[in-house]
Amino acid sequence: MTNSVKLQIYNSLSRKKEIFEPINPPFVGMYVCGPTVYGDPHLGHARSAITFDLVFRYLLELGYKVRYVRNITDVGHLENDSDSGEDKIAKKARIEQIEPMEVAQYYANRYHEFLDKLNVKKPSIEPHASGHIMEQIAIVEQIIKEGLAYEVNGSVYFDVPKYHQQKHYGKLSGRVIEDLLANTRDLEGQDEKRSPLDFALWKKAAPEHIMRWKSPWGEGFPGWHIECTAMSTKYLGETFDIHGGGMDLLFPHHECEIAQSQAASHKDPCKYWMHNNMITINGQKMGKSLNNFITLAEFFTGSHPALDKAYHPMTIRFFILQAHYRSTLDFSNEALQAAEKGLSRLFKAMHLAEKLIAKDKSTLDIASWQQRCETAIADDFNTPILIAELFDAVRMVNLLAEGKESLTSNDLSMLKEQLNRYIVRILGLTEDISDESAAVVEGLMQLILDIRKKAKENKDYATSDTIRESLSKLKIKIKDAKDSTSWEFDV
Amino acid sequence: MTNSVKLQIYNSLSRKKEIFEPINPPFVGMYVCGPTVYGDPHLGHARSAITFDLVFRYLLELGYKVRYVRNITDVGHLENDSDSGEDKIAKKARIEQIEPMEVAQYYANRYHEFLDKLNVKKPSIEPHASGHIMEQIAIVEQIIKEGLAYEVNGSVYFDVPKYHQQKHYGKLSGRVIEDLLANTRDLEGQDEKRSPLDFALWKKAAPEHIMRWKSPWGEGFPGWHIECTAMSTKYLGETFDIHGGGMDLLFPHHECEIAQSQAASHKDPCKYWMHNNMITINGQKMGKSLNNFITLAEFFTGSHPALDKAYHPMTIRFFILQAHYRSTLDFSNEALQAAEKGLSRLFKAMHLAEKLIAKDKSTLDIASWQQRCETAIADDFNTPILIAELFDAVRMVNLLAEGKESLTSNDLSMLKEQLNRYIVRILGLTEDISDESAAVVEGLMQLILDIRKKAKENKDYATSDTIRESLSKLKIKIKDAKDSTSWEFDV
Repeated sequence: MTNSVKLQIYNSLSRKKEIFEPINPPFVGMYVCGPTVYGDPHLGHARSAITFDLVFRYLLELGYKVRYVRNITDVGHLENDSDSGEDKIAKKARIEQIEPMEVAQYYANRYHEFLDKLNVKKPSIEPHASGHIMEQIAIVEQIIKEGLAYEVNGSVYFDVPKYHQQKHYGKLSGRVIEDLLANTRDLEGQDEKRSPLDFALWKKAAPEHIMRWKSPWGEGFPGWHIECTAMSTKYLGETFDIHGGGMDLLFPHHECEIAQSQAASHKDPCKYWMHNNMITINGQKMGKSLNNFITLAEFFTGSHPALDKAYHPMTIRFFILQAHYRSTLDFSNEALQAAEKGLSRLFKAMHLAEKLIAKDKSTLDIASWQQRCETAIADDFNTPILIAELFDAVRMVNLLAEGKESLTSNDLSMLKEQLNRYIVRILGLTEDISDESAAVVEGLMQLILDIRKKAKENKDYATSDTIRESLSKLKIKIKDAKDSTSWEFDV
Repeated sequence: MTNSVKLQIYNSLSRKKEIFEPINPPFVGMYVCGPTVYGDPHLGHARSAITFDLVFRYLLELGYKVRYVRNITDVGHLENDSDSGEDKIAKKARIEQIEPMEVAQYYANRYHEFLDKLNVKKPSIEPHASGHIMEQIAIVEQIIKEGLAYEVNGSVYFDVPKYHQQKHYGKLSGRVIEDLLANTRDLEGQDEKRSPLDFALWKKAAPEHIMRWKSPWGEGFPGWHIECTAMSTKYLGETFDIHGGGMDLLFPHHECEIAQSQAASHKDPCKYWMHNNMITINGQKMGKSLNNFITLAEFFTGSHPALDKAYHPMTIRFFILQAHYRSTLDFSNEALQAAEKGLSRLFKAMHLAEKLIAKDKSTLDIASWQQRCETAIADDFNTPILIAELFDAVRMVNLLAEGKESLTSNDLSMLKEQLNRYIVRILGLTEDISDESAAVVEGLMQLILDIRKKAKENKDYATSDTIRESLSKLKIKIKDAKDSTSWEFDV
């Protein structure tokens, strides 16, 4: 049933939706650009991770065997995403006076911790750029051999104009090389390049640079773009199925990846390019200078002045999924609080559905509702429409509970199973009240002890005995002191 | 106060306790051999991780700035810890028909997940062997240059007899090279070695071997021992403070590390060697053939037939800490259940201490108790004695609660602070009942709804109204249907 609808993916390369047909079914190879680990994870990280988590989950649900590779950039990503300036991680390490790998480890751990909270499934392989220097050097050597890169003073640059004579530089981003040239001015430290469009494959390390490796061109470190080509090739082959990342990586990062792959192997790296759109906060671009740069930690604790309150990770996840991944997404307190309420309604309906009783006939068309859900998710992962269909199910569940509609046993099972499939397995939304449970237990026990006290005063020993027995089964022990009663878990 | 006692560490190299004096205070470099990630984590992993977590925590508590490096072995560890046989991870990958790095990633994730449950702090840097091939090749080249390794058919071996002419092979393990030679027979595939004691630094990859890298000796992969020398040198320098690991790694792994360091840099890798002892289960060695190989997942869920019940991760942690790290530790259901009770007593005393009221004078000597605690932990991390002192504090807290002893405000503060310091910060024991809370809430609500039903039947509307109001404050909403009552959180 679920396969009656064909998955379509919007391919950034062709700029249109295409039917998804993996190169080597049932296997699917997917590579997604992960974080540069020099700062605390923020909403941008969450949106990209959740977008491709959705893709991963849906492909698994369709029965594909997915190898999902998401990298950790721990070297080579220079300031302003350019070929000049300091390495982002080395700079943080210099400021904090620690070893760069301690910075990378700390922020990689933070990234994992927060993605766990957001219920993002772990990728199949999570390679580190610094752990694949040899593979990067090998591809740079291959590109030099193909005549499309050149060495200058211990650095190696990709020759964009020469490449463009043979292939099309700009085919992903739609940039026109003549326009790019017209708009580029020479920047300090880039005078080694033959063309300002050329980009570094390998950079000579200055004497103070800590992160350095031996290479055929002397000690240095890899350029930012080459790591993804090296690691995706190693774990997924020269051409794989899906390459994902944030829209901000489309140019130059992904454009350069295509150029590198074409230069080294004469092949495109992947069949489908997917890009998630950006996030704005109250209509403004997120940025440190605008004081609206909110980390995930701040969202989860409510500690940023722009936030009215703390938001549960599932609220953030649901909010992100309420927009289509290719639309921009604007965060505001109002919108988040609306998402919080909406998510609660979904979960309530799921619980209520569990308690529904089957009848002789169905007055609702569950199969057609399910088909609409599948059509939505298969249409380039259209989660806003899927979620609208799920709210339609909420309405149905309420009518069923009120006895205004009815379902046969088969239809009721299908409804419950599909609610679980879309909400929990595909959208990855889980209920977790454990954090609050301890406080609730405390409150309930207070109420129970009050009732027991009054029962005793009224010599209603039947009630006080029932309480003691029931609590005992829950391994709760009551302790009566002279003028107070306490309780504890009897471990 | 806490520094009045000097930390002593039993050094496996000198076979005696030594005062701990870091090479470059306040910095401490510590390297611990982490897991070979090809199987689910078990008690042995837990014991080593918890032992060095204790060391890490105590050093931090003493104010040292600790760089703690614990590696992930994802390549080069061959079967039977020898230089022959299949790579452990490659074998698992072959059996499961997936890419070796998927195996490594999966089990590294499992390891992290279970260590988190055991409240083991993350190390400062967690380098992967496969991510440091260049560094390993560089050290092998250095050892060849020093004349202490030789290449045969694309493999490189460390020349143990030649090394032993200059240095002492066996100084850590106490093994005598002549005895080792007498007890070794030539094994298949080892005929390339000049001496059966020689060990592989680099192995030529057979054509079917997936994990392979280019090297000056052709395509191959590193030997098992060289990764630790390469990664500890890279992140901690040629000689650092503490090297830890399980007793099973002392020979040959750590003996070989010393030989490699001495050969490459003419220095010992570290000042203090620490080894945690092994685990037995009901008096027997743990092993897959004995059907007593219990994974952490099985302990936490109680799913192994040898287990009476599920054990909470904190019970496992406390149980491990109840023995000194250099003693063997025997797991049994009885011992674990005793640990469970003991831990519960500690936590109860901590809570009770919070409620104690200060008096005019102290009848107990808290400073001297604190001194005994510190003496215990500083004496080569003698946790069984520390825990005995903590149980003495339990006794004191109970006497204080009963009014049989008294403490001034200062002493009471010290008692509470030190209980927290030893139990929570140093031993890393935390209370967490959240997993069970949801079930308890369910049970308590059942009881409350029963009481309410009876109250209504008895027309005791005062009680039923109290219940409704109290629950409403806890955001719990009662829903009365025709013949049943349900409840839900009113989010």
